[in-house]
Amino acid sequence: MAKSNKAPIGIFDSGIGGLTVVQAVMEHLPDENIIYYGDTARVPYGIKSIETVREYAIQITDFLLSQNVKAVLIACNTVSAAANKEVRAHCGDIPVLDVVAAGTNAALEMPAKSNSIGVIGTLATVNSETYEQSIHEKAPDKRIFSRACPLLVPLAEEGWTDNEVSRLVVAEYLQDFRDKNLDALILGCTHYPLFKEEITRYLSGSNTAVIDSALSIARMTKEILTEKGMLNTSGKQGEFHCFVSDKPQRFQTLAERFLGKKLNRIEISSLF
Amino acid sequence: MAKSNKAPIGIFDSGIGGLTVVQAVMEHLPDENIIYYGDTARVPYGIKSIETVREYAIQITDFLLSQNVKAVLIACNTVSAAANKEVRAHCGDIPVLDVVAAGTNAALEMPAKSNSIGVIGTLATVNSETYEQSIHEKAPDKRIFSRACPLLVPLAEEGWTDNEVSRLVVAEYLQDFRDKNLDALILGCTHYPLFKEEITRYLSGSNTAVIDSALSIARMTKEILTEKGMLNTSGKQGEFHCFVSDKPQRFQTLAERFLGKKLNRIEISSLF
Repeated sequence: MAKSNKAPIGIFDSGIGGLTVVQAVMEHLPDENIIYYGDTARVPYGIKSIETVREYAIQITDFLLSQNVKAVLIACNTVSAAANKEVRAHCGDIPVLDVVAAGTNAALEMPAKSNSIGVIGTLATVNSETYEQSIHEKAPDKRIFSRACPLLVPLAEEGWTDNEVSRLVVAEYLQDFRDKNLDALILGCTHYPLFKEEITRYLSGSNTAVIDSALSIARMTKEILTEKGMLNTSGKQGEFHCFVSDKPQRFQTLAERFLGKKLNRIEISSLF
Repeated sequence: MAKSNKAPIGIFDSGIGGLTVVQAVMEHLPDENIIYYGDTARVPYGIKSIETVREYAIQITDFLLSQNVKAVLIACNTVSAAANKEVRAHCGDIPVLDVVAAGTNAALEMPAKSNSIGVIGTLATVNSETYEQSIHEKAPDKRIFSRACPLLVPLAEEGWTDNEVSRLVVAEYLQDFRDKNLDALILGCTHYPLFKEEITRYLSGSNTAVIDSALSIARMTKEILTEKGMLNTSGKQGEFHCFVSDKPQRFQTLAERFLGKKLNRIEISSLF
């Protein structure tokens, strides 16, 4: 049965990082209703086995499907890498988008000058070589340089995204990228869009496009929903429902920082 | 049955931080055999429920007891707070020491000038008010100032303990402490001894004793084993066995950094 265009878009992540995707979708598709699930009780996924990540991803997908979503956005790099095929198979006709594919596509759209792409992410993402595989499937000749930036997640959660520490840390992590004249640098972690300005400023002399995968997946979602005639064009501001598996201390503050706006209500739904 | 003095000392933590305690025990009690258990598959404990932390702590204690240890050192602030009574009850006559009690005792030994003590730790430790309770049980009149320093753990794991970033971060976290002329500042996280020099330097004008709880627990262990006539006085360098529940990438590098020496062999024992 075809979904109503008013059906919500489901977005999920292992924790709160995926709220940067929610924020980008709200901006690009303001009429859409959104349901978010953050598995805050079991974060981080990056240190778990692939089998476990798949199991968790399917549990959350089932929850979103039970909420009658018309599309599923995987707003988590670890799940995109480990379980993207499983989630797609599980969703049948319902479109599934993921941050890795979105970031890859956006990076490959940039004009190839040096034919090199940079990727930054968590240790788990970088070690998994997810982006390398995703990029090389479509463009085997690209040179890829990647670097894990483990301090950016705690810096984002501390709210230090625009101070002397964040400037130093960004400079330390990206110094090798600056001379490479990369065509694009993919922000391969859902926390990193919070450093987009700082990173763009640091790389400003090097003609490198900074790829915000939250923005990329929001754009792709708009394209796909438009193509399928599934856009919500009610003219009313969409509703947002936020579910988490646990509500850690400071969650509200952090979530509002990531979302860039006030959050009225957060529901706890453990699923397991 | 009384244990042989050659029986090992068991030390455990939720992850690798407790290796700073191992390092301090090796330095103070070089003849002692040591067994370490790091629950790297289930780290971090700070975000888990008290019941779960207790269950895990007892599992690990059982493992250490099965290795015939003569003493158990809880080298984890979260376990010290959540499960220290349970571990003691479980160990019967075998002495149990924990980092919170050790840090508290060491801080209270310092001359009281301002009658104030500072505590830094992870968000979980600071929010649990573990040190406040532990200090006020023995000295109800002490004023306590605490601050969570979430960036110090990832900085330690990145190996940035003595660069411009660590200097800035330490200064940012400790600036309010510098004017308070604290009698002592407790490093309430097993990762923090790696910043001891930096912190001592930053506070050098303020007459504040920096309490390294790894060192404190090692000293207490020496006192208790001496008192009970249980010291290993073989004159031979003790053996060290390191067990973890999972071996994450970079574990060897990180463990050697925390331990301050080469690690020959790490065994994986999942317990669950």
